[in-house]
Amino acid sequence: MTVHDFPKGPYPTRVRIALAEKNLQARVRFVMVDLYKGEHKDPEFIARKNYSGTLPVLELADGTCIAECTAITEYLDGLDNHPTLTGRNALEKGIIHMMNKRAEIELLDAISVYFHHGTPGLGPKVELYQNPEWGIRQRDKALRGMHYFDAVLSKQPYVAGAEFSMADITVIGGLVFARIVDLPVPAECTALLGWYERIKQRPSVYRQPAFSDIAAG
Amino acid sequence: MTVHDFPKGPYPTRVRIALAEKNLQARVRFVMVDLYKGEHKDPEFIARKNYSGTLPVLELADGTCIAECTAITEYLDGLDNHPTLTGRNALEKGIIHMMNKRAEIELLDAISVYFHHGTPGLGPKVELYQNPEWGIRQRDKALRGMHYFDAVLSKQPYVAGAEFSMADITVIGGLVFARIVDLPVPAECTALLGWYERIKQRPSVYRQPAFSDIAAG
Repeated sequence: MTVHDFPKGPYPTRVRIALAEKNLQARVRFVMVDLYKGEHKDPEFIARKNYSGTLPVLELADGTCIAECTAITEYLDGLDNHPTLTGRNALEKGIIHMMNKRAEIELLDAISVYFHHGTPGLGPKVELYQNPEWGIRQRDKALRGMHYFDAVLSKQPYVAGAEFSMADITVIGGLVFARIVDLPVPAECTALLGWYERIKQRPSVYRQPAFSDIAAG
Repeated sequence: MTVHDFPKGPYPTRVRIALAEKNLQARVRFVMVDLYKGEHKDPEFIARKNYSGTLPVLELADGTCIAECTAITEYLDGLDNHPTLTGRNALEKGIIHMMNKRAEIELLDAISVYFHHGTPGLGPKVELYQNPEWGIRQRDKALRGMHYFDAVLSKQPYVAGAEFSMADITVIGGLVFARIVDLPVPAECTALLGWYERIKQRPSVYRQPAFSDIAAG
């Protein structure tokens, strides 16, 4: 398998964590796609790898491309018939997918829009259109999202309940992106901050390039 | 089970179709939440049913609420251990989730943003902030999305491949919303239009309130 990757990117980090959780890294070749050069918007990449022009993309041996972190995680978690990230029964699947989507809408994707529209983002050669007002609103939405996940994590150890899941990985992606855009988790969000400290103890998390400077510090 | 519903809404229609495909309608009580009165933005609804303030929401007998169409579909499809909408193996799950998410990003969600920001949407009492420029850009994105799905459907009978899936339901949601905002599928998109005519022959689809005026015509 090949992963079209940007090692420190928040979305690629989600798939890197999923690969590590499933102990599949050794089966993967990582190919760098330079976001800051706009290689993910190249017409060839869009035509052959991912219509939406985003990373990461998982390419299988036969050339089949799977884009979107949730879809890639479903694929990886389905390979061994022992799902540990996406749910074992109807209720787990429903709750995990809800919280995963909520982590995208209310946190990670909102910060991504802020990055691309409310900050210089990937630079003027890549950010051909920006809507700063929309970007700032999404930043504020993400801050509210942090308080929401803080409330969730004050009542349960993981984002989707009693066990680690894909939804935790998506919140991690959100906090990785929050650091890039310098949007710290408010100090009063003690449950969210405590969860993040705990979760960063997992080898699948702290060994990722997105955390390399922290680990070295 | 209870579905918090707006019968002709594009997103509620997705869950209604999933319920019909799984033959589960008789187990569900539908409760109307009036979008045009902003009942989905009511603080009580947000606190108790869905933090994101959107429809539909599936409420189980014990009070557990599952929001987000994909999450609800995963739940419903998982109840009988015979998944027909979300994939039976890793590859099917990966492809279906990718195409489902793509149908959201590139079509349905884009049209929703256009509706709420580039048109009067739900009216001035509900649409407290609008960003018309962003709305118009999302409309144009959705038009490109129609051409993308046309290309997909010129090569295979269903959105995720050889069989009907959750991804088809999401494109249906997109085209239901496209009619509401008067954004017709371009006539040159013959494969997408042909697929839509075929798919509207399914009882799970044409019996939905969103299609009631068409069925009567």
